[in-house]
Amino acid sequence: MTWISIPPDSDFSIHNLPYGIFTTPQRNPRAGVAIGDRLIDLYAVAEQGWLDDLVPNRTAFRQACLNDLIHCGKDVTSVLRKRLQYWLTDPDSPLSRLESAVIPRSEVRMHLPVRVGDYTDFYSSIEHATNVGKLFRDPDNALLPNWRHLPVAYHGRASSIIASGIDIQRPAGQILLDGADAPVFEPTRRLDFELEVAFLIGRENALGQPIATQDAEDYIFGFLLFNDWSARDIQSWEYRPLGPFLGKNFASSVSPWIVPLEALEPFRTEGPEQEPAVLPYLRAAGNHHFNIDLEVSIQPREGIETTVCRSNYRHLYWSPVQQLAHHVSNGCNLRIGDLLASGTISGREANSYGSLLELSQGGRQALTLRDGSQRTFLQDYDTVRLRGFARQGEIRVGFGEVETTILPNESNL
Amino acid sequence: MTWISIPPDSDFSIHNLPYGIFTTPQRNPRAGVAIGDRLIDLYAVAEQGWLDDLVPNRTAFRQACLNDLIHCGKDVTSVLRKRLQYWLTDPDSPLSRLESAVIPRSEVRMHLPVRVGDYTDFYSSIEHATNVGKLFRDPDNALLPNWRHLPVAYHGRASSIIASGIDIQRPAGQILLDGADAPVFEPTRRLDFELEVAFLIGRENALGQPIATQDAEDYIFGFLLFNDWSARDIQSWEYRPLGPFLGKNFASSVSPWIVPLEALEPFRTEGPEQEPAVLPYLRAAGNHHFNIDLEVSIQPREGIETTVCRSNYRHLYWSPVQQLAHHVSNGCNLRIGDLLASGTISGREANSYGSLLELSQGGRQALTLRDGSQRTFLQDYDTVRLRGFARQGEIRVGFGEVETTILPNESNL
Repeated sequence: MTWISIPPDSDFSIHNLPYGIFTTPQRNPRAGVAIGDRLIDLYAVAEQGWLDDLVPNRTAFRQACLNDLIHCGKDVTSVLRKRLQYWLTDPDSPLSRLESAVIPRSEVRMHLPVRVGDYTDFYSSIEHATNVGKLFRDPDNALLPNWRHLPVAYHGRASSIIASGIDIQRPAGQILLDGADAPVFEPTRRLDFELEVAFLIGRENALGQPIATQDAEDYIFGFLLFNDWSARDIQSWEYRPLGPFLGKNFASSVSPWIVPLEALEPFRTEGPEQEPAVLPYLRAAGNHHFNIDLEVSIQPREGIETTVCRSNYRHLYWSPVQQLAHHVSNGCNLRIGDLLASGTISGREANSYGSLLELSQGGRQALTLRDGSQRTFLQDYDTVRLRGFARQGEIRVGFGEVETTILPNESNL
Repeated sequence: MTWISIPPDSDFSIHNLPYGIFTTPQRNPRAGVAIGDRLIDLYAVAEQGWLDDLVPNRTAFRQACLNDLIHCGKDVTSVLRKRLQYWLTDPDSPLSRLESAVIPRSEVRMHLPVRVGDYTDFYSSIEHATNVGKLFRDPDNALLPNWRHLPVAYHGRASSIIASGIDIQRPAGQILLDGADAPVFEPTRRLDFELEVAFLIGRENALGQPIATQDAEDYIFGFLLFNDWSARDIQSWEYRPLGPFLGKNFASSVSPWIVPLEALEPFRTEGPEQEPAVLPYLRAAGNHHFNIDLEVSIQPREGIETTVCRSNYRHLYWSPVQQLAHHVSNGCNLRIGDLLASGTISGREANSYGSLLELSQGGRQALTLRDGSQRTFLQDYDTVRLRGFARQGEIRVGFGEVETTILPNESNL
């Protein structure tokens, strides 16, 4: 179908064409699109003048982030996407002869794709909220009264959102040990991942101007995988009454490729029934969930990789459209580059829980990895990978992966 | 003392010299310094070449925010400040003859002074935390167990931080009315101000690198007044378990002038005794509180102004240095332009409470304004002003004011 040979299990089919920011030893940061094992250097294409009708300012493709390109609007990026699909399927297209624009992905380094303005984290999986409510609060009243009425969310930290491939240091913080009446300051003993999907804002609303659910998708540019690192012992001591802070804001890792909303159209699906019925501003006709398989693996130092969780983005109780409409219902303004993450995406089965907190039942039940080692929470030098892909017949659209290795704590406080 | 005549009650003495961003009908956004009723146009000064030794890139003074100037470092801005003080006290200085650089402040419009990266809100007044704990939770256990061990904080919204003088619309949101078992979506009935002081980050730490308390002030560029608008009914329904979200993120208003840390040196003072003793990473030798009088007034539409609160920045239990050291103790990275706000600053006396929630005892006890009208929470067209100043003998350093008018809700959700 395309003149670039694409392995059948590739995340990056002609139906995907996700955007990212890359460098090579010879090329400063610029925008690229993934296709099979290759990357299309969009700046190299723009330099030919072939995109001037769409994006007159060619430097939008030669930035350390995609914000300027996204700022052109979906009218522009949708045409850009269609033009690339046309060129990539036409063996006589000018692109097929522009060797400098088609690079092996093995030769590039990928970076954080956007400059994030504000990052919001939702809590939209009913299974996750129930599991955590049982562990942190009350087994008999795990879901708080507001949970089914609104997509609960809080603001996270934008500065510490980092690209796949960047190691993180085990954070230290205040921890209340079992039975103690005062905290100690120590490296966390309960370092955890959270399997999430985030969407990227591609259009801005003015302060004071809500967005109706039927318009919400116009404001969503695309999706990426999001690992919201958590230190459970720091979190459980600090979080009352204002929510998570240092237990979360030491790092969040994202996948390098932004999958555009258009690429997910074939994977739309119904969400779960919402009971009680939601308020009118949260009602959304049509299907706004997406059937995307998700998984998490742990690989010990010099060990083999074990998949510890298989979940799906469709498990969310609250859809991205509802999350967005709720976020702006009070007039809060969104900006291009804002990330709205789903919260941990857990399914019903025990192997579908999107965090070690849930998988290990609060640390009470260790997981056995394929190399025989055991985990309740993460150990130093563990590498964690999140992956995601959607498949419908012959159409496969994937997110690639977010890979992060844990380093020991070396702060000297 | 200076060749610009300064009224004795001016906030902007030669000891202050705060930075801001201004425009006039003839001048695009640029950096200025306030002195008495005048403003020094720093770009006009830089254009003469008089600052080239300090800031070779003159466009740092011709931006819509101060970030680039602050990025030069305190080594530079401290010398800039001293040079301005010298010029302003020398009647033969070149500045005294550069008429284009000295503008009446009445002729300028002030703007948001910085591009905010992340905004963090603390909860550092023990009186406020106690008052709110009694109202929202349990009168007998108002302070949660963690409160005296760490400066509780959460991440707020950066996109909706706005300048003084910009009106805000009363937000709508989900509210659980008394006795109801399901929420309604309505304009808030409990719109409130919060009297806060924020400090601005002027130096960056790398991700994973904590900052010791003795170094923390190197990272603080200056201070400003911060009004953290709150919709109490939205907040009380949504905030469990992840903290405030839509009850806060519709707007926060800041004063236009950033008072540099150096200008507050004369006003250092002891903080309250901390009991129990804090962990070593939060210990800070020396005085890191500041004696700054603060007040809030309400002026109804076409009415007269009533001061409803008189408080002081020194009332905080946790100092800015402790707030900063705690924030980065897990390796969280700060960026230039980040704002760390104090949380509502309440004193012990009932007229020193920094929010209407506290002043009206949760809406049970109305305040009577000077025009005879009553308030539990804010009404449409009320104008709220925060003011702050420090005085020590002949030295007066003030913050100016944050002024905001409430407009009716006009969203059509």
